[in-house]
Amino acid sequence: MDFATIIGFVFGLVLMFGAILMGGQLGMFVDIPSILIVFGGTIASLFIRHRMSEVFGAFSILMKAFFVKSHDIHKIIKQIVEMSQIARKDGILALEKVKSDDEFLQKAINHCVDGADPAFLEKILAKELSCQKDRHRNGVGIFEGIAEAAPAFGLLGTLIGLAQMLGHMEDPSAIGPGLATALVSTFYGILIANLVAIPVSYKLVAYSEEEQMVRQVIIDGMISIQKGVNPRMLMQSLIAVLPPTARKID
Amino acid sequence: MDFATIIGFVFGLVLMFGAILMGGQLGMFVDIPSILIVFGGTIASLFIRHRMSEVFGAFSILMKAFFVKSHDIHKIIKQIVEMSQIARKDGILALEKVKSDDEFLQKAINHCVDGADPAFLEKILAKELSCQKDRHRNGVGIFEGIAEAAPAFGLLGTLIGLAQMLGHMEDPSAIGPGLATALVSTFYGILIANLVAIPVSYKLVAYSEEEQMVRQVIIDGMISIQKGVNPRMLMQSLIAVLPPTARKID
Amino acid sequence: MDFATIIGFVFGLVLMFGAILMGGQLGMFVDIPSILIVFGGTIASLFIRHRMSEVFGAFSILMKAFFVKSHDIHKIIKQIVEMSQIARKDGILALEKVKSDDEFLQKAINHCVDGADPAFLEKILAKELSCQKDRHRNGVGIFEGIAEAAPAFGLLGTLIGLAQMLGHMEDPSAIGPGLATALVSTFYGILIANLVAIPVSYKLVAYSEEEQMVRQVIIDGMISIQKGVNPRMLMQSLIAVLPPTARKID
Amino acid sequence: MDFATIIGFVFGLVLMFGAILMGGQLGMFVDIPSILIVFGGTIASLFIRHRMSEVFGAFSILMKAFFVKSHDIHKIIKQIVEMSQIARKDGILALEKVKSDDEFLQKAINHCVDGADPAFLEKILAKELSCQKDRHRNGVGIFEGIAEAAPAFGLLGTLIGLAQMLGHMEDPSAIGPGLATALVSTFYGILIANLVAIPVSYKLVAYSEEEQMVRQVIIDGMISIQKGVNPRMLMQSLIAVLPPTARKID
Amino acid sequence: MDFATIIGFVFGLVLMFGAILMGGQLGMFVDIPSILIVFGGTIASLFIRHRMSEVFGAFSILMKAFFVKSHDIHKIIKQIVEMSQIARKDGILALEKVKSDDEFLQKAINHCVDGADPAFLEKILAKELSCQKDRHRNGVGIFEGIAEAAPAFGLLGTLIGLAQMLGHMEDPSAIGPGLATALVSTFYGILIANLVAIPVSYKLVAYSEEEQMVRQVIIDGMISIQKGVNPRMLMQSLIAVLPPTARKID
Repeated sequence: MDFATIIGFVFGLVLMFGAILMGGQLGMFVDIPSILIVFGGTIASLFIRHRMSEVFGAFSILMKAFFVKSHDIHKIIKQIVEMSQIARKDGILALEKVKSDDEFLQKAINHCVDGADPAFLEKILAKELSCQKDRHRNGVGIFEGIAEAAPAFGLLGTLIGLAQMLGHMEDPSAIGPGLATALVSTFYGILIANLVAIPVSYKLVAYSEEEQMVRQVIIDGMISIQKGVNPRMLMQSLIAVLPPTARKID
Repeated sequence: MDFATIIGFVFGLVLMFGAILMGGQLGMFVDIPSILIVFGGTIASLFIRHRMSEVFGAFSILMKAFFVKSHDIHKIIKQIVEMSQIARKDGILALEKVKSDDEFLQKAINHCVDGADPAFLEKILAKELSCQKDRHRNGVGIFEGIAEAAPAFGLLGTLIGLAQMLGHMEDPSAIGPGLATALVSTFYGILIANLVAIPVSYKLVAYSEEEQMVRQVIIDGMISIQKGVNPRMLMQSLIAVLPPTARKID
Repeated sequence: MDFATIIGFVFGLVLMFGAILMGGQLGMFVDIPSILIVFGGTIASLFIRHRMSEVFGAFSILMKAFFVKSHDIHKIIKQIVEMSQIARKDGILALEKVKSDDEFLQKAINHCVDGADPAFLEKILAKELSCQKDRHRNGVGIFEGIAEAAPAFGLLGTLIGLAQMLGHMEDPSAIGPGLATALVSTFYGILIANLVAIPVSYKLVAYSEEEQMVRQVIIDGMISIQKGVNPRMLMQSLIAVLPPTARKID
Repeated sequence: MDFATIIGFVFGLVLMFGAILMGGQLGMFVDIPSILIVFGGTIASLFIRHRMSEVFGAFSILMKAFFVKSHDIHKIIKQIVEMSQIARKDGILALEKVKSDDEFLQKAINHCVDGADPAFLEKILAKELSCQKDRHRNGVGIFEGIAEAAPAFGLLGTLIGLAQMLGHMEDPSAIGPGLATALVSTFYGILIANLVAIPVSYKLVAYSEEEQMVRQVIIDGMISIQKGVNPRMLMQSLIAVLPPTARKID
Repeated sequence: MDFATIIGFVFGLVLMFGAILMGGQLGMFVDIPSILIVFGGTIASLFIRHRMSEVFGAFSILMKAFFVKSHDIHKIIKQIVEMSQIARKDGILALEKVKSDDEFLQKAINHCVDGADPAFLEKILAKELSCQKDRHRNGVGIFEGIAEAAPAFGLLGTLIGLAQMLGHMEDPSAIGPGLATALVSTFYGILIANLVAIPVSYKLVAYSEEEQMVRQVIIDGMISIQKGVNPRMLMQSLIAVLPPTARKID
């Protein structure tokens, strides 16, 4: 669970409501045609831009930014080093009994036990990693699409509102409220982009990079085990990816 | 057939018409000089920017975003694995009888049967793939050109309208409608870019990447067949490009 | 001769004049100070940005977008395959009698006949290709510079006009025409960028890429000839760069 | 201590206050709702965009731009050359007695003395360098996030202010002050981005690149020592990274 | 001396003054608070963004765009080819007597005479070239910083001016001049960016690329001399970097 995302989201909404209520009523910022244009237009453009399965998957990807399960890299490094000791003592096949919570590490162990040679192991795990990276990039792409489309449809809503207001300007006193309503679309578009879509896309990228880093450690570790690298040197080599202050593996 | 593109397009247009009709008549948003400037100017700039054959091919490329035929990668992987079994039993030449719906796979089979060695096969298929990628990029480039040109010509239309309105401002009451008309060009430009050109260019890129991924699988598979890779390992290696939940090849 | 560029340019100008004349007189869009600021300022910034020889060469580069001589790649591939047959029958030196219209192919033939080994041939031709690419990039850079500078100087012209108009606003009725005149600079800047500079820079890039593709075919072909590659396989390898529908070499 | 950062910051603030006081009172530029929206909204988006630990670490990263400890590359090169003389005379193990202030150099010495071979040494130090680079990039990313978010929330604040002012425009004389207040948010957003976030992110990148350059020198030097490179040639090779005028190593 | 830069600069300033004087007095465009905000703010942000030595070095870098000494590549190629003839006849050590005006060529000759082997020579010269490239990039970075900061501080100045004018709008007739003054900051910012900072940064990049090209020719040439490449082939290989019309080396 990512409390930072939740705090940011709640804090951001409270601030916006607070700032609006400090200067007037909330009702002025609720406008049905603006909602239709900005939310509907953004969703319509997402359907054209992405595949249907990706658009329907966007919500579950968004949830990842709130409820992601972080990887315990210390535990994974510790397990790999232990496996390297087992493999040096009893041979690669002795890893058959090792079980890991990490799906990718378990798969790598299975390949080793199945007798994959280091070159094949590296090729297949690297391919899996790079294809996962592409899939993550597609998921992030939806939020980048929202970040690009929402302000544009916000501007379209404001242009429609402006043109309609200016089109029948018999009563000059109606200009103010008309203009206010027209600006609400732009407000929606910029708020969606900057409080939701842009920051969520960065958080997703960060999680994807963390997962790739962990998986790269697993690939390096398993190949070193197959090559029979000394456990102490393996440990030194794996912890080099950690920040200096976090290198204690108990 | 890509229903997502169709849904997005229809939904987007309905929304725009709906939002316009909720606040006034449609007539206000139909302005012949604006249409000339935005649509005509965008097309004119496309002729300068691209080759004539590419501009005339743009419509058929647009249709791809609606009616693309998706690749059945499971079927292709299955066929490659079956071919690897045939080749191991009866030799490469026995692949002569294999027929594939996939044009690229059929071409790769033909090269194998013709006796191309793995290095030549990889070189020629990789070159074809990279040249196809360049051609796809050119096709996408037209929609990126529209996305760039349409808002610019929309702004030009608004500037022309503004200057003409401001030029003879004898009657202050005419300012409103004149300004409304001037804004319609910008509306057109931003709508074309954000509801059509930008999302279509992303969809085309996604289809191009999918096709390249499938073709890369074919290249890897055929070269492995020539090298006599074990069918079980070939299968494992090819399905690594699929998401973990879609790795069942019946 | 590139009819698309000519059509786009003529069509774009006709549209702009048409749209202006439909709503007023042309005279309103001719303003000497605006012309000085936008055209003069853009040219001044080009002199700072580029070398003098490049600025003076910009016009002849612009002409390339109108009157380029396209490469006949089918003819070049045919000639390379014929040369490979001659070289296999009578040796590399027999190519001495072959003459080509293509300057780069002729140079490659000369190097071969002079006894260059494949490594030296590849190195010298690749270096020439990459240096030509850099020179083309510099040429395109001038139009990218215009595309960047023209709207900026258009905005500067509008700011000058606005400040002057607002500075002595004794007569409110003069605001309209003053504002109209101020907007003309921005109109010039955006028109130059979007109807000329941006599309021309893309067309020049496309021609440069086409030329590089043809030259890469020549490099690959000549090196294969030196290595004594089978003419049928050479043909297959060279036509892989063409789209599938254009692979008939008579 | 980086006096340039301090001077820039103080000078920038003095200028802004000065320019404001020259034309009015400061009070006009202090507006609580604007502060809430711009500062609060930017912080909220940072929480969504980054991990909590990164957001709370932002202040200590900011301090780096003020109080960074510069690396003395001359001293490090001198020490490496001295070590190469020791290693040639008495063997690698004689480096055990060498102590360095530089943490990374000390770690490299320890690895050497521990008997790491050149390939392992290079791999582990290069991995550490590239992971440090990624961590620095994340730190810079926070300031890039502020640079992107602050102007956007500034615009949102202005839109809210404008809509509220236009919504009840009974008294035309209130338009001016209302508009002035609305503009203050945009002022905050652009000031934060351009006086703090953007320049700080560049300064941090420059320090990160300097540190990486120093560490690359250490890696090259220690590997050369292990390979027994001649001290005079090692010196020549290491000082090649310095500008020609700063190559005196006393 | 780069006459193009001087012409562009003088021509640009004359144009701006001319356009301003055609429509009013110059005095309207001189505003002390605007100068403080735009020039001062840009300089303040430069101090935060760069190191102090780089900021103080910016003026001497700017002078390079005016008074650069161009490299005579024909002379350098000729000298390298002559040296290759000397080296083939009398050995590498005979180059000791060769003197070159070009600092980098002289250094390469010294290394050769000192007995550096080709691999060491290439490594050390390539490292020097790449570090020089980084230093040039830092120098260009200052002008890119000005190009980014000046318009932003221009906008800040305009926002301050607008807010102050709108804050006490007792006299409607003062709106015009107040607005005019506010716009002057934006005018400064855009003028500095587009007439100075952006074009100068491109010119500096072009000079840096030219210098790197010349130095790459020197590296290739000296290594070929060490390897004993035939002078005629060396000549052919070196002139391949020149445009076809400039390949006459007398």
